[in-house]
Amino acid sequence: MSANTFPVESLRDRKRRQTRERIVETAFALFMERGFDAVTVDEIAEQAEIGRTTFFRYFGDKQEVVFSTEDDFLHALTAAMGDAPAEPLRDLAQVLAASRRLLLAICTEAARNPGHYAVYHRLVRQHPELEDRHTRKTRHYADLLENHLTGHGTPPATAVLAAQLTLACYQAAWRLGGHDATAVLREASDAFDLLLGATAV
Amino acid sequence: MSANTFPVESLRDRKRRQTRERIVETAFALFMERGFDAVTVDEIAEQAEIGRTTFFRYFGDKQEVVFSTEDDFLHALTAAMGDAPAEPLRDLAQVLAASRRLLLAICTEAARNPGHYAVYHRLVRQHPELEDRHTRKTRHYADLLENHLTGHGTPPATAVLAAQLTLACYQAAWRLGGHDATAVLREASDAFDLLLGATAV
Repeated sequence: MSANTFPVESLRDRKRRQTRERIVETAFALFMERGFDAVTVDEIAEQAEIGRTTFFRYFGDKQEVVFSTEDDFLHALTAAMGDAPAEPLRDLAQVLAASRRLLLAICTEAARNPGHYAVYHRLVRQHPELEDRHTRKTRHYADLLENHLTGHGTPPATAVLAAQLTLACYQAAWRLGGHDATAVLREASDAFDLLLGATAV
Repeated sequence: MSANTFPVESLRDRKRRQTRERIVETAFALFMERGFDAVTVDEIAEQAEIGRTTFFRYFGDKQEVVFSTEDDFLHALTAAMGDAPAEPLRDLAQVLAASRRLLLAICTEAARNPGHYAVYHRLVRQHPELEDRHTRKTRHYADLLENHLTGHGTPPATAVLAAQLTLACYQAAWRLGGHDATAVLREASDAFDLLLGATAV
């Protein structure tokens, strides 16, 4: 690939990103206005001024639009994992302190777009099939954390438990913070404070 | 209702229980033999020597048979909740010690029928739709625990967190114990020891 092709690629990427964002914003506005079930892919495409075929180049179905920020969360998590200390974390309290940092990185990412988060939270709470998918997604994050910890020398039983406890802090924050992303970030931090406060020796 | 009607009722109840058990045992044996997807309701009914209509008097569908022990778990949980101390639990470590007892009551109930649990565990692990339902069920137990704690004077934020941490200990045990119900009971106890050990002041 020659240097000249880069700007062209970049422009295409930018256009792709903008189209993707327009689809998501349009869909979320329609979901809020008329409810998830009532909105069709055709309506989203029409309002976003794209063709139906274009929609399906970006998203497999309407449900996938709801989970469009998954890549951003994974990116935030992976970036935070990259800053992990070199020495292995063996003690549960130590491991939890490290896990806290990773969870807050994801919650901080979510709080960057509070309007989007508020709609996401409402959609997930109102639709069992979306809640199932949200739950599977959070389980996947816990798996990633568990693998990250065992990969860094944490004993398996401690890594499994720490990953689940971190998920528990997030679930508590999800319940207590409601659709307010900033409150969720604060509650996640408070949950870890409560847990680590109780764990302080 | 006269006293005379009781023996008749009791006999009917016993027959119902036995039929229900036969359906579950037959279905679980067939699931193990040929896999959940390949087994039909008609086959279960035929092998259990009942009619298709009778099957549907006991279970809404094939999936419901997998979750047939839910009532036993709820009964074990409710019974253990009845033994709760009168004074309110405010401190997280205290609340966790009480929650531990409730979780172990459910795990002990599961360990009463290890063969059934082993098949249940395999089915849930192999079928995403069963795993979703299992997850919803465990979330429901966490909700019950949260309500129990707030009803007994635990501050809401502590109750929410304690319920999720208890669920986390169960999830860790589920992962570490595999399809061995006795191992799950032990791992649940160990997870709480690790958590409460770290929380011991």
